[in-house]
Amino acid sequence: MQEKTTRTEVKELGEFGLIKHLTSGIETQNASTKKGIGDDGAVLDYGDKQVVVSTDLLIEGVHFDMVFNPLKHLGYKAVIVNLSDIYAMNAHPKQVTVSLGLSSKFSVEAIEELYEGMVLAGKIYGVDIVGGDTTSCNAGLVISITAIGEVERDKAVYRNGAKEKDLLVVSGDLGAAYMGLQLLNREKEVWKANPNMQPDLDGYDYVLERQLKPEARKDVIRVLDELDVLPTSMIDISDGLASEIKHLCDQSSLGIELYEDKIPIDPTTYQLARDFDLDPTLCALSGGEDYELLFSISMADYEKIKSNQDLTVIGHFTAHSAGMNMITKSGSSVELKAQGWDGMKGND
Amino acid sequence: MQEKTTRTEVKELGEFGLIKHLTSGIETQNASTKKGIGDDGAVLDYGDKQVVVSTDLLIEGVHFDMVFNPLKHLGYKAVIVNLSDIYAMNAHPKQVTVSLGLSSKFSVEAIEELYEGMVLAGKIYGVDIVGGDTTSCNAGLVISITAIGEVERDKAVYRNGAKEKDLLVVSGDLGAAYMGLQLLNREKEVWKANPNMQPDLDGYDYVLERQLKPEARKDVIRVLDELDVLPTSMIDISDGLASEIKHLCDQSSLGIELYEDKIPIDPTTYQLARDFDLDPTLCALSGGEDYELLFSISMADYEKIKSNQDLTVIGHFTAHSAGMNMITKSGSSVELKAQGWDGMKGND
Repeated sequence: MQEKTTRTEVKELGEFGLIKHLTSGIETQNASTKKGIGDDGAVLDYGDKQVVVSTDLLIEGVHFDMVFNPLKHLGYKAVIVNLSDIYAMNAHPKQVTVSLGLSSKFSVEAIEELYEGMVLAGKIYGVDIVGGDTTSCNAGLVISITAIGEVERDKAVYRNGAKEKDLLVVSGDLGAAYMGLQLLNREKEVWKANPNMQPDLDGYDYVLERQLKPEARKDVIRVLDELDVLPTSMIDISDGLASEIKHLCDQSSLGIELYEDKIPIDPTTYQLARDFDLDPTLCALSGGEDYELLFSISMADYEKIKSNQDLTVIGHFTAHSAGMNMITKSGSSVELKAQGWDGMKGND
Repeated sequence: MQEKTTRTEVKELGEFGLIKHLTSGIETQNASTKKGIGDDGAVLDYGDKQVVVSTDLLIEGVHFDMVFNPLKHLGYKAVIVNLSDIYAMNAHPKQVTVSLGLSSKFSVEAIEELYEGMVLAGKIYGVDIVGGDTTSCNAGLVISITAIGEVERDKAVYRNGAKEKDLLVVSGDLGAAYMGLQLLNREKEVWKANPNMQPDLDGYDYVLERQLKPEARKDVIRVLDELDVLPTSMIDISDGLASEIKHLCDQSSLGIELYEDKIPIDPTTYQLARDFDLDPTLCALSGGEDYELLFSISMADYEKIKSNQDLTVIGHFTAHSAGMNMITKSGSSVELKAQGWDGMKGND
């Protein structure tokens, strides 16, 4: 390896800091590049529609654990997390490309199972797998997926469009995927201590499914369109609510007031968090992998969405100078910190 | 890992066999998917232009060696190999997305160098980097790049369009990148035996540059357009001439007659191969990583290209039943076998 003499550790910058650092000087050159780095996807303009592209790299031991990720579910989830990025642009995914790095421990049958999950996700979401590449890999499984979608001209929704007084809305409920992971990790430890022990997962279908086989909110994009609501900003929740709120605030140059008692948490998630001696709110704020959509709407659009049980207003945007705050259940205001799951933590 | 009871080793199918096996039942669902799996890139139709997407996964220890791949060159090459796929569709790359998996051995400065090379390639080829993702990785460096390009409607060139009697043409010269790799591997062994020894690479600039910092043949696509020659089929040479010829023959259902004495090999490459006791022709046939364009043209177009020093007619297509044959320098006909570099060989 050839390096300059100064050495800054990646963890000093963190994942987002690193990307920002690396890409801050990059200028786009083509008229067809409407939006490059800095959002959930890139928007390209080739004709009467705009093209949205998003890419993700999933690595064994960092993003998933072969002990409890069934391969078919893993393939499904790998596609879903990419589609979620496309929906978060208010776009419709149409194609994905898949690259796999595989160690010799994977048989053809194992890879077939993985692919079955990918193909299933493609069928359910109406997305074609249009590219494939496999190569050997010394360290387990590497999955790289690029999703490509389309959106009507000027209908793409970015992270930077929220306005002061806009309402912050989230779909579904939060924290369940994180609790599913806690449960799986606990049973893995039990299993390691006694491999004959059967895992005790009864009654936890919901949190397990949220972790192992999540869905992307295609339905929410359709509903918003039907309600004639165009969000002013949007992001999907992969790293945790707090981290995603920070992205919207940073890019829109705004502050936020978040209401703890409004954060939607499923009863199973809530009880399981309590059983694990965890704060359910913290699970929602920092757990991640929910793949719900988090977006801002103008107050004028509130009437259109208020009767939808699947959409919850959880806060409103304030001036940037007011900062990011959460009004707790007890009525006090605390600073909201983004302590989301850190993709670089494997380096610690 | 969950597997079915039958176990087929990946190496039994090989890289291309595995992809074919996995994707043979996949049907496209969108009118916008003009071409999915099975070529250098996917062609998507969103408007007045067609969109071409191609993706590659490069893994340390499989595709590159950190001992002799300077990071800036590695970044440059990683982009180039993807652009080469887009040109091989007769399309023009416009955007790339980059995902990196990084172990803790990489400092920010090291990744900067890698990115510098990517940005440089982008500038030289007029391509925007429009997406980025980094994550931790337990096993060195993983680079996943997706290139997106555009092509005039119905001008995309596939692997399956060659016709009997079409001429087989190749750009540039072959085998140099492979000899560059042999040279670097030799000096690495010398260096391992005695780390104070300086590598002896004088006079080998050409083969080293072909290995470490290759170019994509944007110029050839432009020249063909200027000459009003639309190839009937095309592919880029990443795995070796023989392997790529086999792709064209298989997909076009044709045979080939290749003339050994026409295969363009640079004098430095030729001499170096001899010094290494290697057959220069075999280096061209099986070496790979040339990133030259290999294409077929109608005999009627021969007059248009014959005076171009950078394009060499090396054979002609025959009936499928005639098979793939090479007429040797001594005038005999031998069966042409594709023994190209195998991306799965790390599993052996």
